[in-house]
Amino acid sequence: MQLITGGVCAAKGFKAGAAKARIKQDDKYDIAVIVSQAASVAAGVFTTNKVQAAPVTFSKQVVAAGTAQAIVVNSGNANACTGEQGIDDCQAMAGQTARALAVQANQVIVASTGVIGVPLPIDKILPGISQATADASGDGDKRAAQAIMTTDTYAKEVAVEFVLGGKRVRLGGIAKGSGMIHPNMATMLGFITTDANISRDLLQQAVSETAADSFNMITVDGDTSTNDMLIVLANGLAGNRQIATAEEDFNIFKQALNQVCRELARLIARDGEGATKFLEITVEGAQTAKDARLAAKAICGSNLVKAAFYGEDANWGRIICALGYSQAEFDPSLVDIYLGSLKVAENGAGLAFSEEEAKQILSNKDVKVKVALHQGNFQATAWGCDLSHEYVTINGSYRS
Amino acid sequence: MQLITGGVCAAKGFKAGAAKARIKQDDKYDIAVIVSQAASVAAGVFTTNKVQAAPVTFSKQVVAAGTAQAIVVNSGNANACTGEQGIDDCQAMAGQTARALAVQANQVIVASTGVIGVPLPIDKILPGISQATADASGDGDKRAAQAIMTTDTYAKEVAVEFVLGGKRVRLGGIAKGSGMIHPNMATMLGFITTDANISRDLLQQAVSETAADSFNMITVDGDTSTNDMLIVLANGLAGNRQIATAEEDFNIFKQALNQVCRELARLIARDGEGATKFLEITVEGAQTAKDARLAAKAICGSNLVKAAFYGEDANWGRIICALGYSQAEFDPSLVDIYLGSLKVAENGAGLAFSEEEAKQILSNKDVKVKVALHQGNFQATAWGCDLSHEYVTINGSYRS
Repeated sequence: MQLITGGVCAAKGFKAGAAKARIKQDDKYDIAVIVSQAASVAAGVFTTNKVQAAPVTFSKQVVAAGTAQAIVVNSGNANACTGEQGIDDCQAMAGQTARALAVQANQVIVASTGVIGVPLPIDKILPGISQATADASGDGDKRAAQAIMTTDTYAKEVAVEFVLGGKRVRLGGIAKGSGMIHPNMATMLGFITTDANISRDLLQQAVSETAADSFNMITVDGDTSTNDMLIVLANGLAGNRQIATAEEDFNIFKQALNQVCRELARLIARDGEGATKFLEITVEGAQTAKDARLAAKAICGSNLVKAAFYGEDANWGRIICALGYSQAEFDPSLVDIYLGSLKVAENGAGLAFSEEEAKQILSNKDVKVKVALHQGNFQATAWGCDLSHEYVTINGSYRS
Repeated sequence: MQLITGGVCAAKGFKAGAAKARIKQDDKYDIAVIVSQAASVAAGVFTTNKVQAAPVTFSKQVVAAGTAQAIVVNSGNANACTGEQGIDDCQAMAGQTARALAVQANQVIVASTGVIGVPLPIDKILPGISQATADASGDGDKRAAQAIMTTDTYAKEVAVEFVLGGKRVRLGGIAKGSGMIHPNMATMLGFITTDANISRDLLQQAVSETAADSFNMITVDGDTSTNDMLIVLANGLAGNRQIATAEEDFNIFKQALNQVCRELARLIARDGEGATKFLEITVEGAQTAKDARLAAKAICGSNLVKAAFYGEDANWGRIICALGYSQAEFDPSLVDIYLGSLKVAENGAGLAFSEEEAKQILSNKDVKVKVALHQGNFQATAWGCDLSHEYVTINGSYRS
């Protein structure tokens, strides 16, 4: 498994492009397209929010049919809570993309991100799609990654290369955050492409299993969005023998997918709205994987924990408090807590630690917390960021 | 049911006092005692956090025995995650209080609030208890309300007077917030006294039922504390015939308890850390009471909703997004949303409302939101506050 440069264009036969359609107020890319030269199997996971944006409803149906050849995305408007018009607009976006790329309209996945409850400016979007498809090339991955950004401060892409049955296979993706991030089945938006040859069922299995340990383990603000979507397209051009059983090749593929998804998830957490610090919370010694995940995510999502890290205050009491309401099973009298390598609590009670050493650890941009439950052998890691004044500023003025 | 001035000293036979024991850094009250001249039945609800402070463990046992005559409280230190020493310290506090007031040690309820994980400064607390008990009088309610404050900006007390079988009965209480507020069975600390004559079982039933619609419906930051505790003492000195069945007198009593608890809960929400606005979120037309509560509390607890109100931005998309992940049952296409009296969304989609009118409504200190689900006849109201820069400032520097 080797990390390589690139994103959605790393795998054979994929191109990407972007355009500035002026959906956003400023002069930035806001339309992205990703296209495969060959038919691809498609799999995905979508938000569990009961309020689902039109592109979620639309793209679920495309993915359910099992194949797709292109993805079109706009930022600056979520096309959520937009009624029948929202679905019509998805169809118009898919149709325009299909015509421009000479693929079937039912092979186009549509995604949107931005403000909720405002109809799409479809008269700007359709010409934007024409430009983005004309722009599509083998080096358009970075522009596409930029085009799906909202309050993100940098574009997020990751790719890996690995070998399946003697064939070189690549898998790469792009993703965006950075607010309304508390994914539950997927993140805000993540798009992965691979030239692996894999059956549709196993691709879906790999995506679902991977999401639980990657995108679903990040939180920025506890708000699960209406538009979350993680899509993987696999066009088989690597020429490996099709992965059709959950055996060794499948495990290698899953490892690649997992590495790319976890890295994209970490990039989103690091770029959380207003973030000044990246938090990595590991809970080990849990009785079950579910307990470990619940505990890590509760700690990582606590406003009080996040504000304490912003203030570089070694207030571990807030960590054990969040653990306590996480719904995870554990015995409070067995809990040890570490900030970096510094043990600050043992058997559920405080240790006399060096405040100076703690302050030094917390002054870093990356802060790791380890919580040892001593109850079993399961562990999980959650990623997040601190809660800063800037978060409040961003979200006190986002829509207007 | 008549609102009267006063708090825990409003009911016949109750005194309160306070002292400055220098547990807090500054020159403020930090020890409170409340005492009844007669034996009282006691009932309470406690935090559901799996990590429970020593005074929670201790006072649960006292309340389980059914009677109590005094309450002693310290602020500035939560006595949480303090191991065996924590329980020993509770016993020392109860013992000191009992001696000074000439009551039995097993009749004293102990509560603490403040930083987690630091042993109590018991050498300061014991003399402080002596002072507070010496200070106890019929007009000490306000000092006691001050002594239980942490980051609260004002003392919170409420009392009512009503008639049971021709007898005048009073019920009053004090409470404190204002961070780590997302109660689940009780609030941070609430103490209610009444001279009503009521059986222990019915008192407990009244407290449990009332908590669900009052303290359990407020949220400041989503963090359920390790120290939450709501206690009611009833000493029977009003002379009413004992309330021993869940009939008319019980309903009147519950109405009084509910009024005092809801008002105290609202005072806590209004004084949430860093709050500049008080939010009242009402969800109506739900299929069940549980759905209504889940929905109202999720909206009220969303960081994005709270930050939007801080910024006076009519971003109703965040409201419907929070509704969507609340786990409440509803049909998104039937949802109407109002800011004050202004309808901003209908049938799950945005209306063309006046931004000017919205801005004017959101510029008020008190903001009401109504969400109509059109699914049934249940409703619930949650109370909270906005998310401000000041919240981050307070919680980036609380412990140090």
